[in-house]
Amino acid sequence: MADQITKRSENYSQWYNDLIVKADLAEQSAVRGCMVIKPYGYAIWEKMQRILDDMFKASGHQNAYFPLFIPKSFFSREAEHVAGFAKECAVVTHHRLMNDPDGKGVVVDPSAKLEEELIVRPTSETIIWNTYKNWIKSWRDLPILCNQWANVVRWEMRTRLFLRTAEFLWQEGHTAHATAQEAQEETERMVNIYADFARNFLAIPVIVGHKSPNERFAGALDTMTIEAMMQDGKALQAGTSHFLGQNFAKSFDVQFTNREGKQEYVWATSWGVSTRLMGALVMAHGDDNGLVLPPALAPIQVVMVPIYKTAEEHEAILDKMYSLKKELEAKGHSVKIDDRDTLRPGFKFAEWELKGVPVRLAMGPRDLAGGTVEVHRRDTMEKVTMAIDSLVDSIGKLLDDIQKTIYQKAFDFRAANVEKCDDWEEFKAKIGTGKFLLCHWDGTAETEQKIKDETKATIRCIPVDSFVCEEEGRDIYSGKPSRCRVVFAIAY
Amino acid sequence: MADQITKRSENYSQWYNDLIVKADLAEQSAVRGCMVIKPYGYAIWEKMQRILDDMFKASGHQNAYFPLFIPKSFFSREAEHVAGFAKECAVVTHHRLMNDPDGKGVVVDPSAKLEEELIVRPTSETIIWNTYKNWIKSWRDLPILCNQWANVVRWEMRTRLFLRTAEFLWQEGHTAHATAQEAQEETERMVNIYADFARNFLAIPVIVGHKSPNERFAGALDTMTIEAMMQDGKALQAGTSHFLGQNFAKSFDVQFTNREGKQEYVWATSWGVSTRLMGALVMAHGDDNGLVLPPALAPIQVVMVPIYKTAEEHEAILDKMYSLKKELEAKGHSVKIDDRDTLRPGFKFAEWELKGVPVRLAMGPRDLAGGTVEVHRRDTMEKVTMAIDSLVDSIGKLLDDIQKTIYQKAFDFRAANVEKCDDWEEFKAKIGTGKFLLCHWDGTAETEQKIKDETKATIRCIPVDSFVCEEEGRDIYSGKPSRCRVVFAIAY
Repeated sequence: MADQITKRSENYSQWYNDLIVKADLAEQSAVRGCMVIKPYGYAIWEKMQRILDDMFKASGHQNAYFPLFIPKSFFSREAEHVAGFAKECAVVTHHRLMNDPDGKGVVVDPSAKLEEELIVRPTSETIIWNTYKNWIKSWRDLPILCNQWANVVRWEMRTRLFLRTAEFLWQEGHTAHATAQEAQEETERMVNIYADFARNFLAIPVIVGHKSPNERFAGALDTMTIEAMMQDGKALQAGTSHFLGQNFAKSFDVQFTNREGKQEYVWATSWGVSTRLMGALVMAHGDDNGLVLPPALAPIQVVMVPIYKTAEEHEAILDKMYSLKKELEAKGHSVKIDDRDTLRPGFKFAEWELKGVPVRLAMGPRDLAGGTVEVHRRDTMEKVTMAIDSLVDSIGKLLDDIQKTIYQKAFDFRAANVEKCDDWEEFKAKIGTGKFLLCHWDGTAETEQKIKDETKATIRCIPVDSFVCEEEGRDIYSGKPSRCRVVFAIAY
Repeated sequence: MADQITKRSENYSQWYNDLIVKADLAEQSAVRGCMVIKPYGYAIWEKMQRILDDMFKASGHQNAYFPLFIPKSFFSREAEHVAGFAKECAVVTHHRLMNDPDGKGVVVDPSAKLEEELIVRPTSETIIWNTYKNWIKSWRDLPILCNQWANVVRWEMRTRLFLRTAEFLWQEGHTAHATAQEAQEETERMVNIYADFARNFLAIPVIVGHKSPNERFAGALDTMTIEAMMQDGKALQAGTSHFLGQNFAKSFDVQFTNREGKQEYVWATSWGVSTRLMGALVMAHGDDNGLVLPPALAPIQVVMVPIYKTAEEHEAILDKMYSLKKELEAKGHSVKIDDRDTLRPGFKFAEWELKGVPVRLAMGPRDLAGGTVEVHRRDTMEKVTMAIDSLVDSIGKLLDDIQKTIYQKAFDFRAANVEKCDDWEEFKAKIGTGKFLLCHWDGTAETEQKIKDETKATIRCIPVDSFVCEEEGRDIYSGKPSRCRVVFAIAY
């Protein structure tokens, strides 16, 4: 099983692809750049969705649904947005097929050309702000706190499963506010919800910060981000939250009467995370045996494998397993009994390791007689023996411990690979070796671009929490004065 | 509030549109035929999704996700399917926009023409069976029981909110089986799940049956359906389940090694319900005051409106309301306190009636002093006084009663409007007056078509449960012999 997967040390990128496919998470489809998300992968995504959706609702947001298609002209309204999003995209030009006059299948009916082309949404600011125009008249209509779960399409030239696909699934929040301050608070609130989700559910430590102007969302005044370190030391942008100012309100003429009775443009935010999080999950925790899933997101938290020779043994062990399963499920754990009779236990062990199931129980006749069970934890690959009598409590604690241990491992890995750096030669030597470098930056787009051109490294963020470092210094490249360090890394 | 809505008796169709828009369920978007589903409407759809999804999972199905786009050539593979689905559809022909050389926004880049056009999925049998080809080798890989929640696009010429839109949301199940019998059982299982959902959650009685060959899904050997009667006596097809035989397996060459070691084509089903159910909900239960929501699907089950003059009264009443809210929520009921201070109680009453909230509580100082509360039920518009002490129990029972009463009302309405009919002149006189007519049919497509041409009536189904009527008789139109009655109606 695991021998079908390339080792991380051999080829990290190939390991990633092998793992996605062999663990049944996703696969390429017949359509260029579009993936099929398989049931096991989709079950993980559903858990992510449910948790995030609950967090959004607890913070006052509601779901809605806006059209898949956006009239081409909408993109031209916001000057920066058009440059960022109306380039590589799927363009619908016709609305009918007809039988090929030559009898070879179907062809596009030339008489069914649309008057205005439609773009399959790459992001929905334009269509949503065109809608909000009708929803907002007065300050009493604000705030509007909408989210949508949807598919979006960006015609990427080079695609990778989950990380960069032409079609992907995501949520996009779009809020409208009466004041700049409220919108900025919302921007921060949502990036912090993403950070909370990453740390407590994905078990991935993230750095929260602002993007440099170069790396902002097209049309935003400020973009906040959560940045995660993968096991190859590269950075993955895992979620972003944008303060859009009044840009979209102005482009779509969305004004409201404020408390003073004056007309004013509405303030906006947008924020999103996508199926890219699946890629983050795989790359942050997986090992050469396969996936390692944090219990909080594992579709199966505990798998049980019976070990027996006789039919009598089989029945006795299964009886016990079903009663344990019931008890564990009553405590909210998801449990699977793998009773396939055509496969050896060793094969099953390897398969569930590949799929990252956090805990495996194996039980044979001697275990049953002795009132014990062999428990294997996926994260450390350690085996311990547990008493059946107290198993339900023990498993609950073990799952908690696994969740924490996975996070701590990722945290320690990152801690070992973040360094301050004040020397340009050292920067060049280290940046390609899987490090996040905390460096002074002079704040100019010019310097940022030069560093990127020479090293491929980008400013991942100007940190606001754990890595914030406000101190006087000099830009690592230009030597000009700087007041704080920023995070440089090579990114996915 | 309600005076903004056309009365049903005046113009049922206008009433429907008014209601959808005024109750904040949905609205037209800037894109022809595509709707915006507003937060209140989407909250109802989310409840439907959650309940159906739980039912699908309880019957062994898993969710997955397949691409939005389908290569044009895929549609030509299944001969009937192409005729049914590859006509009015959204066709993607290009993958890039560029700045207009004349400086007027953006235009399609002619150099970015796709080699093969992509169709935005109108339904996913083709792309899914092309995928299943790689998943299925042996009988051990079967059954595959997948469902997906997705958006689909059919370029309808005449659209109506929820009932017929260019883009709509739905779920589509696609299953693969080793035998015809298993696939047929699955087809029946799913139509029965839909019927169960319609009756117990939508509170809509439905007739379960088979479609006549004319009305089958393009590519199916059998289509089962649930048919509901709206308040104008027209039929609404609310869900379908298809036995696809080996048609798609043959078109996409999906074979498996059966238990005897022989190669065989796989057997298939597909089944779906869509946001059309929202239209059914509105049309089945709404009245001239607005929506009437069954408690099982109401995003807000109980709304509380405080009635007060002084700040002291206000505070005391709100205190009581928050404690009641907490108790009701602990019992699983969703509760909203409408404490907007800029609106009169009468205005609030009308608004929540319009939005179909099943139960409204109004509490004033005298109620509080007397330990009572005024309770209004939306379905019958009756008011009763309840004791605050036992309110939580009383509300639970009331919600159950409302759910049953709404169903019974729809059931009685249908019972009053279904008739046996054996005379063609009578048929012509009655079919346009809002009746379902149970008639003998000779089983030929020819007769069915002639009846449709003369009266617009179609065979909604050949019933299998409540309305099954196997008896000798003569076709209502042709006079030829028949062995059972079928359901004729004018349909949405």
